[in-house]
Amino acid sequence: MIDETHDPALRSWVESANRPGCDFPIQNLPLGVFRHGRSPKDSLGVAIGDMILDLAPWLPGETLNSYFALPASDRRKLRHEWSACLRADSPVRNLTPQNDCQMLLPAAIGDFTDFYASIHHAANVGKILRPENPLLPNYRHVPIAYHGRASSIVVSGTPIRRPRGQLREGQFAPTKELDYELELGAFLGPATVLGETVPIARAEEHLAGVCLLNDWSARDIQRWEYQPLGPFLAKNFATSISPWVVTAEALEPFRTSPPPHEVAPLAYLQSTQLTTAFDISLEVWLLAASAAEPTRLSQSSFKEMYWTLDQMIAHHTSNGCPLRPGDLIGSGTISGPEPHNRGCLLELTKKGRAPIKLPDGRQRCFLEDGDTVILHACCHREHFADIGFGACSGQILAATTT
Amino acid sequence: MIDETHDPALRSWVESANRPGCDFPIQNLPLGVFRHGRSPKDSLGVAIGDMILDLAPWLPGETLNSYFALPASDRRKLRHEWSACLRADSPVRNLTPQNDCQMLLPAAIGDFTDFYASIHHAANVGKILRPENPLLPNYRHVPIAYHGRASSIVVSGTPIRRPRGQLREGQFAPTKELDYELELGAFLGPATVLGETVPIARAEEHLAGVCLLNDWSARDIQRWEYQPLGPFLAKNFATSISPWVVTAEALEPFRTSPPPHEVAPLAYLQSTQLTTAFDISLEVWLLAASAAEPTRLSQSSFKEMYWTLDQMIAHHTSNGCPLRPGDLIGSGTISGPEPHNRGCLLELTKKGRAPIKLPDGRQRCFLEDGDTVILHACCHREHFADIGFGACSGQILAATTT
Repeated sequence: MIDETHDPALRSWVESANRPGCDFPIQNLPLGVFRHGRSPKDSLGVAIGDMILDLAPWLPGETLNSYFALPASDRRKLRHEWSACLRADSPVRNLTPQNDCQMLLPAAIGDFTDFYASIHHAANVGKILRPENPLLPNYRHVPIAYHGRASSIVVSGTPIRRPRGQLREGQFAPTKELDYELELGAFLGPATVLGETVPIARAEEHLAGVCLLNDWSARDIQRWEYQPLGPFLAKNFATSISPWVVTAEALEPFRTSPPPHEVAPLAYLQSTQLTTAFDISLEVWLLAASAAEPTRLSQSSFKEMYWTLDQMIAHHTSNGCPLRPGDLIGSGTISGPEPHNRGCLLELTKKGRAPIKLPDGRQRCFLEDGDTVILHACCHREHFADIGFGACSGQILAATTT
Repeated sequence: MIDETHDPALRSWVESANRPGCDFPIQNLPLGVFRHGRSPKDSLGVAIGDMILDLAPWLPGETLNSYFALPASDRRKLRHEWSACLRADSPVRNLTPQNDCQMLLPAAIGDFTDFYASIHHAANVGKILRPENPLLPNYRHVPIAYHGRASSIVVSGTPIRRPRGQLREGQFAPTKELDYELELGAFLGPATVLGETVPIARAEEHLAGVCLLNDWSARDIQRWEYQPLGPFLAKNFATSISPWVVTAEALEPFRTSPPPHEVAPLAYLQSTQLTTAFDISLEVWLLAASAAEPTRLSQSSFKEMYWTLDQMIAHHTSNGCPLRPGDLIGSGTISGPEPHNRGCLLELTKKGRAPIKLPDGRQRCFLEDGDTVILHACCHREHFADIGFGACSGQILAATTT
């Protein structure tokens, strides 16, 4: 529902929020968990420009789990209150500069499920791994997903150690095919109980907000381990997420139609609304240790995803699997139809056979030690204020020597 | 380390603990979480005979997570104290009858990882799903595992609703191939940090205790969804565990040698000890709604597993994936070399082609509504007291009608 909090004419008394290109104008109001200076306590906050509004008067605790547990109507009410107190005509409150704070994981993540919702990604990877059989027969029927690891989800900025593993039979060594995956993460809202299903028409009530997610992957480990139960150590050494959760409410103006399906989905996956996709533009940048500036590797949009978030939630609960507030869903790598829309190096370099040329003349097949991968996202629609996601970044550290 | 707490001559002043065949003699001392009558509070306890010793004087909280976080030396010390105060020559303490209590999940389970550590199970299932290629080339090198769902882990006794799902292209219906899987669950102990590896010689320090685990599975859903990322909705509708955690200390007398490996494992998976397997006898019983008595479906032993718990822990952390106290590892279905050692119906009935005949003349290919599956385990070794695990049971409820 679009309301006065989305009005593009709104201005904040926090001047930095009104500057063109700011990720966090008053129409955004993303939530996060921060620690100020040497404080031993974590606090909940809303980003506004380059400042943070402390949410202690509204929300108790040190994680957003209790916020995610709220019904959507309560979340909307809180958004109105925060919007009101940050408007140009509101009294000044004490804010904290983002630069003085460390950002933390937004929630105690219960379960992490990673989908595979981009048909372009599935087809591109399929061509590389199974040229004779790129898109499996179930893809257009089942929103494919697997369970990921919650304990290794880290906040943007955390360095990523190159993992060791079995690269092929008989070889245990640091991965030679370290990759990123450009994804969105979706934090789930109100709990369901064992045996409860969420009909697709109500699925969005369980979508609390989204962030950027980098599902770091070791392709050589993945190839050798993934049959028959799927990826495990190739993925669970680290997953990075951006610290600011852009709420479902903030995304309202950016709804759009999902791409048409060649094969009609089963009834439990058929949305009753036309606009269940979100138009979120995404970019991947690489900053090599030797480079002065980052290079853009790809661009894509979340609106290209074959399966939408409401379909993912309806599918996930169709067997009665319970959801908990703060559970995280990953979208899977977000690739689009064009070569510059590919959301990971496996796709971009065709498994290393077509290296990317960087501006300094060097090449990349997979990530090298010292490389920093930076994900960005923003939403743009005429007659609305642009909103951004901030960054999700991580630098690759060399493998340990033992 | 075997010590005085394992002495088979020990007797408890709790008479029921001294009866032959009791699962919980004074040499066992498993831990659990119970709720007495209508108390709003959950308590930690040790099972002794048919009673429970309240652990409030030793351990705070309402879950065993803080116990699992303790170093093994502290766990051993506590075992000595509990053993001492339950011996025949000790003062009487107030105990609670198990019959007056409801048992709860032992811990807030962070992440659940399910291994695939029985080569007999992998080969039997492989023959059914991929007759041309039963045991995949990675099996003897990689302790295969996948991430499971923590939110749907339930305690023994919780009814299991038959899940709906996509059984094949175009069909969404209640599963027709509902199965159990006989497994052990292992609760993990002290935490590791992101990037830390646990060398195999120290892996057992992170094994806090074990329980029975039934990894309920919907085989038709699994067949259609599992490529390429592994099982998802076929498994995450429910996983049952027994409420009493048999500690690593209680298992000491039952160490044994693992079966020989035809292919030597890589160095990081080579145990320095000879006795890293545990001899735990397991049984599966089926109580049909129409039957007066349960029927034993299979028997096997945990000592047959190709991969041992220390290998699983070393593998899991070999890429730096962090462990948290209260994380749960499943062993995978425990099957042995003989036909009566098969730990699930998929194997026992060869995917329904060879139905099991029950004593009342009825047959089973897969589970029917009203069936109760009961897992049992016990450890037996000459010159030591037998210890048991209690039961892990669950009854199948009909699918909902919508």
